[in-house]
Amino acid sequence: MTDPRLTRLARSLPASVPFVGPETQERARGGPFAARLGANESVFGPSPHAVAAMAQAQQWMYGDPENHDLRMALAAHHGVTPDNIIVGEGIDGLLGYLARLFVAEGDPVVTSDGAYPTFNYHVAGYGGVLHKVPYRDDAEDPAALFAKAAEVDAKLVYLANPDNPMGSAHRGADIVAALADLPRGTLLILDEAYVDCAPDGTAAPVAADDPRVIRMRTFSKVYGLAGARVGYAIGVPDLITAFHKVRNHFGMNRAAQAGALAALADQDWLAHVKTQIALSRDRIARIARDHGLTPLPSATNFVAIDCGRDAGFAKAVLDGLVARGIFVRMPFAAPQNRCIRVSCGTAQDLDAFAAALPGALRDAEKS
Amino acid sequence: MTDPRLTRLARSLPASVPFVGPETQERARGGPFAARLGANESVFGPSPHAVAAMAQAQQWMYGDPENHDLRMALAAHHGVTPDNIIVGEGIDGLLGYLARLFVAEGDPVVTSDGAYPTFNYHVAGYGGVLHKVPYRDDAEDPAALFAKAAEVDAKLVYLANPDNPMGSAHRGADIVAALADLPRGTLLILDEAYVDCAPDGTAAPVAADDPRVIRMRTFSKVYGLAGARVGYAIGVPDLITAFHKVRNHFGMNRAAQAGALAALADQDWLAHVKTQIALSRDRIARIARDHGLTPLPSATNFVAIDCGRDAGFAKAVLDGLVARGIFVRMPFAAPQNRCIRVSCGTAQDLDAFAAALPGALRDAEKS
Repeated sequence: MTDPRLTRLARSLPASVPFVGPETQERARGGPFAARLGANESVFGPSPHAVAAMAQAQQWMYGDPENHDLRMALAAHHGVTPDNIIVGEGIDGLLGYLARLFVAEGDPVVTSDGAYPTFNYHVAGYGGVLHKVPYRDDAEDPAALFAKAAEVDAKLVYLANPDNPMGSAHRGADIVAALADLPRGTLLILDEAYVDCAPDGTAAPVAADDPRVIRMRTFSKVYGLAGARVGYAIGVPDLITAFHKVRNHFGMNRAAQAGALAALADQDWLAHVKTQIALSRDRIARIARDHGLTPLPSATNFVAIDCGRDAGFAKAVLDGLVARGIFVRMPFAAPQNRCIRVSCGTAQDLDAFAAALPGALRDAEKS
Repeated sequence: MTDPRLTRLARSLPASVPFVGPETQERARGGPFAARLGANESVFGPSPHAVAAMAQAQQWMYGDPENHDLRMALAAHHGVTPDNIIVGEGIDGLLGYLARLFVAEGDPVVTSDGAYPTFNYHVAGYGGVLHKVPYRDDAEDPAALFAKAAEVDAKLVYLANPDNPMGSAHRGADIVAALADLPRGTLLILDEAYVDCAPDGTAAPVAADDPRVIRMRTFSKVYGLAGARVGYAIGVPDLITAFHKVRNHFGMNRAAQAGALAALADQDWLAHVKTQIALSRDRIARIARDHGLTPLPSATNFVAIDCGRDAGFAKAVLDGLVARGIFVRMPFAAPQNRCIRVSCGTAQDLDAFAAALPGALRDAEKS
């Protein structure tokens, strides 16, 4: 029974979770996964300096609600001003704030069919109406997204570059060129969560003061701090200021603030991780090919593997892997859901994946 | 210039901060405070087991979105079921979710004049209309709160017990008795953030399945983990489930989850901290009396000190303390704002407070 005192909107929402966590699956299967390759976390871990900074943090104190030191460092890193930057509880948290700021009930929002479900969750949570355009050649389609935004007069349009779950990427310059067709009055949320391990030229060269775009970045992926919950956005100061109207000012974990600051300063570690990611992507691709599957090119820390048949077959392969202790996920929407998605792992993780895949494929053939 | 694409509600909100952080003040004054006694943090720190657990946490992994282990432990601790418990990003985060679930634009909400500003921030942020009742004898007044709730047909009524900023407390049994006058259709938010250091009998013996009340608890105060951002609420499962409609499922810091679990298990540390708090409260009271001021009785980890004159005088005393490197705060509303509020500190912190107070009082007399 839903509490009748809830708002009408809240009553209409399902109690949902965008992703089932691996711990939930481990409890269901009665034991830990042998390899955790499903959440695009960085198994290579954060900088040792970040680990040390977090261990030394004085957690009896609230974090700095202004995130001052981190914003200063990020501003220097990106060559923008601190007023161009808002730090928040992961990109998930920032997307929630952004949806709250822009989306009233009935407001149209545009995304790709099969793109980030947590964005959709936030938009629906504020009563927005989602319009979806299909992927094109396993990539998000800026031209189609912006055309749809014009058609429905969208408040927001979401574009991840590189894309999750397919791993594809556009050149940043192409995104900027496409902006000519972004309708006036639509804000582009450019989610660059994976850009730190993408080829040079993937990050969109958008001016920080360009009012048409807000860029999202995170310490959860290549920086290896998913558990810390630190994301940030870069945008025009007027837009950044709006977050202060609604954000949880004391919401940032103090150790996470220190960890992100130390992680940002250790670009050598980032380079090391990028090398590990590249090696791991290559190995995942080889394992896929060795078993007759088709790895898609990846600009991210994961590889989408085309299992060559329909969604049912890919799901059977995924189930077979999970049953064998390998945590992986798969795209939600057709035709991307002919694939499974495997995050980069250590050599040992990928040994386990390689060992489990033949049995999973055998089971899937039979099912 | 406010972005015209923001929702009408968002445009109407100020870019605000419920509290200015001590770091902001330190940057303004050009140096660190000698004693940090303004945010009711626990300078005695968290359990060493919690510190160790946080240091060992693998922050490359997202936290468990179900907070399973912590909810199980909290359920056992309180003698309730895990379905009675929601864990969130501090009480601040949970208050935000609750406001979102219950408060549509124009919905009436009741609180005390001068009670927790962050609750007011969240209610205003969803367009709620706040109705305030005065404190009575420096304590929140359940009868007046519930009468006002009946008068305005409030969705929510907020009551902190013990109270912040005055430190007063009602017996839990008296809160339960007052519930007879809570109007049908009003949910009582009973904020028990400070109850862990209050006298026995302060926690309200409310059944976890009582649909009239949701209780809020935190690891930020006596458990010493303010920086970690871990709070929880206890309520009827139907109400708890509603949080899953809107919460940031992967919003919890993984190390914080582990730290809270270890802190909860170390009740010996809690007892140690409670002793330190009691000693510190007594010393703050003595220092106040030594300078002709009147300490109010406290069931919390801070002491409100009546400076004996008006708000302007108290503010001058506060400014004098801040200028001398002592971070303290004061109540926002009359007549409570004749006081300053001093958090418990170490012996060294209170030495610094005692040394600064005479000068601050001298300056205030002159101003």
